[in-house]
Amino acid sequence: MDKESMKKIAGQEAVKYIKDGMTVGLGTGSTVKYLLDALGARVVNENLRIIGVPTSNRSAKRARDLGIEVRSIDDVDHIDLTIDGADQIDENFQGIKGGGIAHLREKIVAINSDKNLWIVDDTKMAKNLGSFPLPLEVTPYGSTHLLKRLDKMGFNPKFRTNAKGQHVLTHADNYIIDLNLGYIEHPHELEKVLNNMTGIVEHGLFLDIVDVVIAGTSEGPKTFKAR
Amino acid sequence: MDKESMKKIAGQEAVKYIKDGMTVGLGTGSTVKYLLDALGARVVNENLRIIGVPTSNRSAKRARDLGIEVRSIDDVDHIDLTIDGADQIDENFQGIKGGGIAHLREKIVAINSDKNLWIVDDTKMAKNLGSFPLPLEVTPYGSTHLLKRLDKMGFNPKFRTNAKGQHVLTHADNYIIDLNLGYIEHPHELEKVLNNMTGIVEHGLFLDIVDVVIAGTSEGPKTFKAR
Repeated sequence: MDKESMKKIAGQEAVKYIKDGMTVGLGTGSTVKYLLDALGARVVNENLRIIGVPTSNRSAKRARDLGIEVRSIDDVDHIDLTIDGADQIDENFQGIKGGGIAHLREKIVAINSDKNLWIVDDTKMAKNLGSFPLPLEVTPYGSTHLLKRLDKMGFNPKFRTNAKGQHVLTHADNYIIDLNLGYIEHPHELEKVLNNMTGIVEHGLFLDIVDVVIAGTSEGPKTFKAR
Repeated sequence: MDKESMKKIAGQEAVKYIKDGMTVGLGTGSTVKYLLDALGARVVNENLRIIGVPTSNRSAKRARDLGIEVRSIDDVDHIDLTIDGADQIDENFQGIKGGGIAHLREKIVAINSDKNLWIVDDTKMAKNLGSFPLPLEVTPYGSTHLLKRLDKMGFNPKFRTNAKGQHVLTHADNYIIDLNLGYIEHPHELEKVLNNMTGIVEHGLFLDIVDVVIAGTSEGPKTFKAR
């Protein structure tokens, strides 16, 4: 089965967790697209009243097009459930996000949600984190020095650039540095180190955040209760 | 003696630490203005070759007007000495900065400098930190939720606004939240808590950073070796 079909399976399974009247955080990415399609259908067929809180302009537009009411995170007083993708999930349900440069907003929405559900295709599930590069959103000012510092620490950092070699910019006009770590032995220790470094606005480690993971596999959706 | 005279005394004393050929980080604020005036005079009189790395557009303009060569932090490979002001300095030479909204850039310049020197008028020296509000630069997205969270933690947070009641914006278009703490018993513990909070880009605690403090007093400059 191809990846797209696995993503679709996960998105279609996740939509069952959304109930009438909920305020729902809507993540970013290719798997979330399938969730939004399925949610749009439910909103029409079941006349659901849902408030969507998108983490990107793309998700906002898509949700609006599907007839979902969209509000900014600062215009809701709480979020019942957030459904988002992930770039890698280890066997303890710790995750890496930020391949799509939206991890700052995604983390802000996640920590303000009562429940978090991640949807992925099966290839994102791994024993350990680290084979997927860890994204850092960084302040442009002084970022060449930050890169050197990360390099001295053995983190194999690299600025993320576009096809023209220019810095990729986040929503907040920050740069992205990807750490090519290979294998993250102690995610919580690494998190502490990164949290204490000046110039890193937010890293892509999402630890102890997700409640339920749905992986699309060739045998259908697999649901994991993370905590 | 008035505050302005004490600031001037500190600025004029600090300029003695600058040597020909140095790359110098130039802070922001009213005391640094006096340093720049004194430095400008030395550049002309002694034909000093100095590279200045300013932390604000205002300091950059001022330095250029005085004939000091100005470069961005990302265009120098190191900084020999940074001279900056501070909003409050305790008896262990820990500091609070950010009253002038430039503490993100100031901290980035500080940690990339071989030596840090702070210049203040005597009224900034205190037994403990905290009577000066602690500034946080925060991501606008989700900041109402961050404010509520900080409030629940007992930190007395308040958005910094201008006369029209609009958010004050930093260089990076972030908001400022000031924590009215009164008394910070354990600065390092507070730092850890703040470093681990999503949405805080940088806080104004400057711990274990300064090497020399020069306070302008009515009896002249007082110099303290911090570490």
